[in-house]
Amino acid sequence: MTEKNPSDYIRKEVIDFNPYVPGEQPGLGDKVIKLNTNENPYPPSPKIHSAVNEIITSGVLRKYPNYHSSELQNAIAKKYNLDPNQILVTNGSDEALRLLFYALLAPGDTVVAPEPTYSFYPVLTEEVMLGAKYRMIPLLPDLHFDFEALSRQEGKLLCFAHPNAPTGILEDKSKLLELVKGFKGVVLSDEAYIDFTEPGMSLISEIANHPNLVVTRTFSKSYSLAGLRVGFIVGELKLIDLIRKLKDSYNVGILDQTIAVTAWEDEEYFGICRTKVLEERARLTKELTGLGFEIPPSATNFIFCKPKQGISPEGIYLKLKEKNILVRYFSKGIPKDYVRISIGTKEENDRLLSELSLILG
Amino acid sequence: MTEKNPSDYIRKEVIDFNPYVPGEQPGLGDKVIKLNTNENPYPPSPKIHSAVNEIITSGVLRKYPNYHSSELQNAIAKKYNLDPNQILVTNGSDEALRLLFYALLAPGDTVVAPEPTYSFYPVLTEEVMLGAKYRMIPLLPDLHFDFEALSRQEGKLLCFAHPNAPTGILEDKSKLLELVKGFKGVVLSDEAYIDFTEPGMSLISEIANHPNLVVTRTFSKSYSLAGLRVGFIVGELKLIDLIRKLKDSYNVGILDQTIAVTAWEDEEYFGICRTKVLEERARLTKELTGLGFEIPPSATNFIFCKPKQGISPEGIYLKLKEKNILVRYFSKGIPKDYVRISIGTKEENDRLLSELSLILG
Repeated sequence: MTEKNPSDYIRKEVIDFNPYVPGEQPGLGDKVIKLNTNENPYPPSPKIHSAVNEIITSGVLRKYPNYHSSELQNAIAKKYNLDPNQILVTNGSDEALRLLFYALLAPGDTVVAPEPTYSFYPVLTEEVMLGAKYRMIPLLPDLHFDFEALSRQEGKLLCFAHPNAPTGILEDKSKLLELVKGFKGVVLSDEAYIDFTEPGMSLISEIANHPNLVVTRTFSKSYSLAGLRVGFIVGELKLIDLIRKLKDSYNVGILDQTIAVTAWEDEEYFGICRTKVLEERARLTKELTGLGFEIPPSATNFIFCKPKQGISPEGIYLKLKEKNILVRYFSKGIPKDYVRISIGTKEENDRLLSELSLILG
Repeated sequence: MTEKNPSDYIRKEVIDFNPYVPGEQPGLGDKVIKLNTNENPYPPSPKIHSAVNEIITSGVLRKYPNYHSSELQNAIAKKYNLDPNQILVTNGSDEALRLLFYALLAPGDTVVAPEPTYSFYPVLTEEVMLGAKYRMIPLLPDLHFDFEALSRQEGKLLCFAHPNAPTGILEDKSKLLELVKGFKGVVLSDEAYIDFTEPGMSLISEIANHPNLVVTRTFSKSYSLAGLRVGFIVGELKLIDLIRKLKDSYNVGILDQTIAVTAWEDEEYFGICRTKVLEERARLTKELTGLGFEIPPSATNFIFCKPKQGISPEGIYLKLKEKNILVRYFSKGIPKDYVRISIGTKEENDRLLSELSLILG
């Protein structure tokens, strides 16, 4: 009886939709130096071994996880002196971003963002499929936000990565807060890389005075847990309570909750890895500048590198790939003149530098 | 400048939305006999210990997981002789269901389902927030599907749990397939409990001949992995390719993928646990019938029990709770005359039976 193709039942908006394309992921065992998706080069806290062992041995995986990820909520709340219910723990910060966009965007709404920034935002705006518009405000020639233009925007949601990606640039906190104050809508500060800035840069502590501000975070980068899927969103209590309504009941598993809490509380190990990344960032920036790259000051665990005139960034990407070193190349807009390189271990960075020296002659 | 309450920016449909309410979850360490959310009473495959250990020791959690959960896709495809891309691995079957509903439902669309069935379906229909309607076709007085009424329905999506929940009843496979053939839309067979039926009851092998059929599965019940979050949806290739577009890039973590593969392949252990559950189901059914309960034949890991006239099911639920035994009570529709009891271990079931004997005098 069904003469239609089953895929004809899918909404037209879904058929037309172009999902986000993440950076290449070689097999987990592959011998590739992977500097393309801003993973941390160091393993997660060694304390997770015994935490995981306890979970597995107890057999508790047979039970559903805690709905709210309460233990993690509490640990995060304690650090920032928040009500735990201001925190919604999610399946990676991807889920936090998705829930925020779905909760806010109605037909005719506008999302405003600097361009370039995290390219998942326009995808999400389209994914809501209610015809919301995404308005890009180009960066200034020095790659900083155009605060003047941003402050004139109207919309339901203003979002930016803080520090920004793929530029790696940290904007002035007071300028960002002025933007938040003036925007008649919700403002998202997506702080995936904030732990690689100097301490005190996060906007989380500003939520109390800026109720239209929400902040997202992830355990993927600074906690070396991209393979887990844990992130969170923080904001005014009522706002988060409403966003929470859209999450799946058990969005974060028991192991994810336990490992994230353990990593969160191991501040000593966190500090050691962070310092190593920052040291390598400084070295890599200096060495690559010496090789002729132009590099804006990075406040993240990656650097945004523009080769000397006449040298193709795509060519560099391809030649490094031949040598089993993956960096990220974006083919459009400002980023097409750059390669984005994640900070690896000292040994990985040494390999990168020696291959680049050969490539650049 | 922001005079509006920040929560005023949330879509009205979200504010009005009532999310799914899962069964009570006491703390994981609590000394409660938990027979209310159909978890498996036995721990997951002991082989997951070394699989997890290898992941943790290798430090690979610092890297993003495989986008497609390929290894798991392949393992599932092998068992059912499918193209791996016909399988979309998800963060619990909740995500599979959500993606299906979002991909299909447009304004004016109708979802048809027997009633009662899994009460997440009407919630999802509302969650899509495009005004899709949910049409309930009441079960017959014997608690079986009203195939005659169901076969007359039009809609975008017809969904049922197979076997059904909370009744535990298995419908005739050929009647279900006739329904699938006749329905001009997508049909979902939600097979969360299928492993507790006799082998050969799944509709997965029928997808090749019924391209409008999709099947969802979970590792939560028969694989004792509710604390992980892994499920999947299987269907015609193009249909699944379109649904996949809506998933978050890294929806399933490395540990989840690895543990699920390990449990999936440990067929011996799976069989042992399954047999124990079925034996206890038979014993519990017999004993509870002896205590005056009316119980439809269960093809799942729970039983749907109607106490003798004059005895309140809610009262039984409350009195058991006082004794630290949790069962499920639903306050509406047909289920309000029943309690739903998950099959526990022999010891747990003994405790349940002795407390029930006391309660019923």
